[in-house]
Order: sequence, then C-alpha cells, then structure tokens
Amino acid sequence: MRTIDWDDDRAAVRLIDQTRLPVEYEVVYCERVEELIEAIKELKVRGAPALGIAGALGVVLACKTATEGEEIERYLMKLKKARPTAVNLFYGIDRAYSAAKRGKTPEEKEKLALAEANRLIEEDIAVNRRIGDYGSELLEDGDVVLTHCNAGRLACVDWGTALGVIRTAISRGKHIEVIACETRPLNQGSRLTTWELMQDKIPVTLITDSMSAAVMREGMVNRVIVGADRVVKEGVINKIGTYMHAVLAKEHGIPFYVAAPTSSFDLEHGYEEIEIEERSPEELIYCGDTQIAPADVRVYNPAFDFTPFELIEALITEKGVFHTPIKLI
Amino acid sequence: MRTIDWDDDRAAVRLIDQTRLPVEYEVVYCERVEELIEAIKELKVRGAPALGIAGALGVVLACKTATEGEEIERYLMKLKKARPTAVNLFYGIDRAYSAAKRGKTPEEKEKLALAEANRLIEEDIAVNRRIGDYGSELLEDGDVVLTHCNAGRLACVDWGTALGVIRTAISRGKHIEVIACETRPLNQGSRLTTWELMQDKIPVTLITDSMSAAVMREGMVNRVIVGADRVVKEGVINKIGTYMHAVLAKEHGIPFYVAAPTSSFDLEHGYEEIEIEERSPEELIYCGDTQIAPADVRVYNPAFDFTPFELIEALITEKGVFHTPIKLI
Repeated sequence: MRTIDWDDDRAAVRLIDQTRLPVEYEVVYCERVEELIEAIKELKVRGAPALGIAGALGVVLACKTATEGEEIERYLMKLKKARPTAVNLFYGIDRAYSAAKRGKTPEEKEKLALAEANRLIEEDIAVNRRIGDYGSELLEDGDVVLTHCNAGRLACVDWGTALGVIRTAISRGKHIEVIACETRPLNQGSRLTTWELMQDKIPVTLITDSMSAAVMREGMVNRVIVGADRVVKEGVINKIGTYMHAVLAKEHGIPFYVAAPTSSFDLEHGYEEIEIEERSPEELIYCGDTQIAPADVRVYNPAFDFTPFELIEALITEKGVFHTPIKLI
Repeated sequence: MRTIDWDDDRAAVRLIDQTRLPVEYEVVYCERVEELIEAIKELKVRGAPALGIAGALGVVLACKTATEGEEIERYLMKLKKARPTAVNLFYGIDRAYSAAKRGKTPEEKEKLALAEANRLIEEDIAVNRRIGDYGSELLEDGDVVLTHCNAGRLACVDWGTALGVIRTAISRGKHIEVIACETRPLNQGSRLTTWELMQDKIPVTLITDSMSAAVMREGMVNRVIVGADRVVKEGVINKIGTYMHAVLAKEHGIPFYVAAPTSSFDLEHGYEEIEIEERSPEELIYCGDTQIAPADVRVYNPAFDFTPFELIEALITEKGVFHTPIKLI
C-alpha cells in the first residue's frame, strides 16, 4: 500500500499511521480536513514528500467541506500551519489549490484538486525513481550506508529518497547494507527505517544516534545518505542530528549525500529566515508511557537542524546530482 | 544520602537504585555478594568511581559469606565479570582484598575489608573535591557546560567528577548552566544528571544526544566536561557518545575536558586491548514497556567508545590538570 493516497469509495485521505509502527500496521482515513491536520501534527504522516501529497489532498478535503472560496482558504491557512518547516506541504497545497481555483462549482473545484493531487502522487513516485537512478551510481557494491531518520517510502508515497537510492542500487545487483540511527526523540529510524528495510529484506543494523562517530571511526561505514525537509540558499534543513552526522562524516573522510526532490527547494530564503519547529518537551520526558526525565525539567527540542553545503559531497535530485562545491544560486 | 555505602545495622551494602530514578527514589540493600553482582549488571549502581566502592564492599560481602580463601576468590572472579570495562571495579576489589588477606579468621578478613572499603569511600569524596578544586579553575563565570551521561554524585559516593567540577565552580560564586545530553540508550543524562542537578537547583536543559552539534553551532555551549570509565595509554574510554562530542567540540572550537580520578587510570594498556562491553539489543528495542523497533532487528550496542588525547584539552584529576598535548607515559 502507498504511504498516503486518496480513497475513492470513502472519499477520504487514506494513510498508514506511522506513530503505530513497527508494533501495529494501521491504516487511518481522514474524511475532514481537520482530521488530516491532526494527523500531520501528530506525525501520523510525516516526511517532506509525503507532506506535499498531504497538502494537496488536504485541498481536496477543504473543497469537499467548504462551499465558498474564502472558507476554503481559511482551511488551507490552518493546514499550512500544521507543520512550519517542510516546504513541500506549502508546495502541495499551492499546486492543488491553483488547480481547484479554475473550477466554478464546489464539485468542480474538488474534482480539479483531486486530479492535481493524483498528478502529484504519480510525480512523487517518478521523481523518487529518478533520484534512485542518479543516486545509485554513487554507491559501490559492498557499501555500508549510514542513514538518519526515515527518508524511505514511508516519507514519500513509495520507494523513498535516501532509501530509494539504496533500493535502486540493490535492484541493480549491488550488495548494500544499512546502518539506521534511531533518531531521537521520536525514533523514526528505529521505528520506521528498520521496519521498511526489513520488509524488503535489506540488511539493516540499528544504532543510537550517539554511536555514529564510533562506527565511522571503526571503519564500519562508507557513505552517509539522508533526506531533506527544505533545501535553502546555503544548505539543507533536515531532521535534528543531520548536521552532527555531516560534521562527523567530514572528519572521518566519509562522503555525505543528501537525496531530495526539487520540490523541497526554497532558494529564495536563507536558513536564518526559516522557522525551525520546536516540539513539545514531553517528547524527551516520556518514551511511550515510560517517564525518562524529571517531569518539570527544562527541555530544548528543535525538530530540525541546518547543514551547510560545504559538508555535503552530493545533492541528489530528480534532475541530476549537484556535486561539491554545491552552488544552487 | 551517599550513592553507595555500608549499612552497619543490616550488615549490607546500601545503594540508591539508579534504574528507578527520576520517577522513584528507592534504596536497596545487598546482603549477599550475588545480589550486589546483579545490582551492578542491572546498573542499579553505575559510574566508574561508584563501581570502585561497589567492588570493595563486594569483598566485604564475599568475606561475610565465604569461610575460606578459595571460596572468596571465586566470588571475586564473578564480581569482576559483572562489568568488564570500568577499571575502578577491579581496583576497588584489589584494594579491599589485599587488606582482607592480612586477616586470619573470616571475621578478621571481613573487618579489614570493611575498613579498607570505608577508606576508599572517604578517599573518593576527597578525590572528587580535589578534582573540583582543580577543574573549577577552568570554568568562567557565565559558562554553559555540555555534559554526557552522568559523572555526578550518582556516579561516585558524593559530589561527582564532571558535575563535581561544576558544583565547585558554582560554590565559588560562578554562574554556570548545564546542558545535559539524554545519553541513549539508557538515558543516564535525562534520568540522573538532570535529577541530581535539579536537586541542587543548578540550571539544566535537557537535549537529545543528536542535538549536541546544533547547540554548539548556535553558540549555546562554552565547554564540554565528561567523566571517564578508563584512562588508557592513548586516550579515554567513556560512555558511548563521548567520542562524538569530542570531535564536534573540536570542530566548533569548544574546549573538551575529561574529569576522572587516577584510580580510573590503566596506563599499561592501549584501547585496543580493552574489552568494550556490548550490551543487550533489548536496550534499543524497548524503552520501558514501549517497543520502539522491530523485535528481531539487528542491533549494535557498545556501551563505551574511545576518545584519543588529541581531542581532549584538559584531563582533570585529583593530582592536578594534564593540559593538551596530554602525554601520561
């Protein structure tokens, strides 16, 4: 099943609830835009490319619920605020709403938004495949690739960006193994990346984020590949911890790659202009039902960090690979 | 209360159960050496200096239980194997057993071992204070110090090594704040370091280990101080993640200090000769009762890593500070 999709029978957004994996595989349906906004905030759906699709499908739901343009736009404002950092959410909303606006009746608008969302879904899959085509050339038979967070099919509609590169390389006969960093505090690495790779029988070893330097020093890693939430003027904004791996990779002479569709590009802004989402202290104080810190401790919990292009050896997109020194503008 | 101590009334080792903090403050008593070995394996007591005391008090329990020398030594072999990496455990056992051997009867042996264990306890507190005296000179008013794991009073009998340096600096009127890394997978940073600093009203902010580089880049940190499980010929073996922080500190021009008593020194060995304890995969698959990874995922879980002296600007001991370039032999 696709990570996120439109369900015609139920006239609803259908998505894999990523907060329940790997223990339970559960599919949820959002029939109203408010439900989708909650699902995005709770990270039931996450990953920059998947958020783009969520944005586009959110426009369909907004058109379904609202009868006039102004009301639709109020919904879309709320939808955009669900998560502030990944640019794909805005991109998906804008694409689908531009299409919807050409319709005259609410029914026409909904139909046009859905057609555009479906185009985006097909594009996402095709873009992932092209990223895989370009990126797989950078991997050698026998490589062990370290990755952070989840930039796999669960972050997209299918195939994946960083993990898509690995899937393509394997499909072309290269033996590739993966080291997955657990990715605190929400464990997308241990919960999602290991799960989807094990589903595909791709060899994967789980480590804590803090072991990255040690495994590099021990010669256990040949490459690092991660995804991106937003590519800005001077570098890449991605899951907290990405910058750490990039510095460590450079120190150990290990190539560091970022795989991302150009829909994640926002070259009009520098990283200092971007709002970095700060998430709840609870994420560090509890792990499931287990309390792992004093309830009233002060917490700093940014969801993303910034990695300058100087630390990135290759930026892999569907349009080709930008090699170091990367200069996009 | 001291972290670990001898209870005369119950003729038992009394210790704070560190696996229950910060949710519950519970004191446990070990009347038999087997109970103490289990407590060490389960990390109810942990931290290199505290393990030294546990070793010495273990000799008291062994003398109490066993009637002849050979039987005592069998107990001590098991005690030494409880955790293989921290040298203080062996040091404490050797000190107390050398004393015990001078006794003729089991009662005499037990008494001599206890006297030596009590000397070690007093020494540990005095040594911590001297480490604090020397180390606090390196801290400036207004510093924000990042630390990893727990090298505080919960890792010793009282006061602490890395956190002892901070305590002494504060007691001399300097304003110091702490950033505590949660220290996966067992969260000694979030569970213990935050707890003991908050008890003392020392300002502390909790972050994930993966945020270290980002907070350094943002200029939120002036120093890093950690403890050590073993100081060897070429560097320091300490909690997994220490090496990562050291590389990142160097990259960001932030001084990186290690605070450790000379009882943690093992200068006859190089790091490649030291057994690095690999702990159970369960530690990464579960967090309390919550499953956070596929049950059958492959896991790499070393408890420690190695940081070469080149990355350490100062090694703070009770005998003074070794400054970079550090050369101990």
